[in-house]
Amino acid sequence: MAKRSFPLSKVYGLLEPGPVVMVTTASGGRSNIMTMSWHTMIEFEPPLVGCVISNRNYSFGLLKATKECVINIPTMEIAEKVVDCGNTSGAKIDKFETFCLTPKPASQVGAPLIEECYANLECRVADTKMVAEYCLFVLEVIKAWIDPTVKTPRTLHHLGKGNFMVAGEKIKLKSKMK
Amino acid sequence: MAKRSFPLSKVYGLLEPGPVVMVTTASGGRSNIMTMSWHTMIEFEPPLVGCVISNRNYSFGLLKATKECVINIPTMEIAEKVVDCGNTSGAKIDKFETFCLTPKPASQVGAPLIEECYANLECRVADTKMVAEYCLFVLEVIKAWIDPTVKTPRTLHHLGKGNFMVAGEKIKLKSKMK
Repeated sequence: MAKRSFPLSKVYGLLEPGPVVMVTTASGGRSNIMTMSWHTMIEFEPPLVGCVISNRNYSFGLLKATKECVINIPTMEIAEKVVDCGNTSGAKIDKFETFCLTPKPASQVGAPLIEECYANLECRVADTKMVAEYCLFVLEVIKAWIDPTVKTPRTLHHLGKGNFMVAGEKIKLKSKMK
Repeated sequence: MAKRSFPLSKVYGLLEPGPVVMVTTASGGRSNIMTMSWHTMIEFEPPLVGCVISNRNYSFGLLKATKECVINIPTMEIAEKVVDCGNTSGAKIDKFETFCLTPKPASQVGAPLIEECYANLECRVADTKMVAEYCLFVLEVIKAWIDPTVKTPRTLHHLGKGNFMVAGEKIKLKSKMK
């Protein structure tokens, strides 16, 4: 299954609905995966994303050092792997190997894409001013990929303590909103 | 229908899934409603929320002046009103009146609760350091209310241009995550 390049101007539509994402980082031959729900769009284009990555997480150090990551958007099909990645630390295990996820080279950054995710957003850290106080990184999405065969992605939305809401029906309302 | 006080420690579970919210503000006898999808949790407790409110919005001035707002979480039942509030400006109309929404006094802040929303989070602005550059406010939730009769809220999740995903089924996975 070949992913297609996805316009940066449309990235907000992938992140606005609040899906659980998997952030990948890599440094010195080691890569990691972190499950994350604390993110928001900050700007449409170039797409800026604010995300909170705790300094207790192994990914924090990798992201700070390399200033690069990939935001991967998983769906229901791999829900257990999403939770497994959230419950373990990259300081102890190789999550790609342990949970049978497939790393694929990104085009612009050193961190890998997760093949099993329907969308992948290659990011560079754009601002670290809020990292010391809130662990809040501002990321710029510099390249986006999407699986064109996935029309209604069953994204996961965390409700706390392992409870998730799965993306339901789509509705269309008359709107002037972007 | 009487809303119940909701523990601040559980607020993250309401915002993490990424629902469209309606932010209310009030100043000098005028109140306003703004539809918003750009928010993220920043800290569990006290609950801190980062949210982007453009300086082109009428609510930006009200929030900057009063440093208080309410994050109201609507559901499918009032989807059209949510979009209507997003498509109009409080500089020109009274949205409560125009769209038949009911303002109720909050307990801690001057901004009103929207009665028709199943959850209401009274907030104070905690940090404005990122406002000049990104219009990103850090809010602290100081009081939360929930309608105890709503067990599976059909929250709205914006996909762009008036397309919404409605919250679907719930699943529970074994997790150590908060």
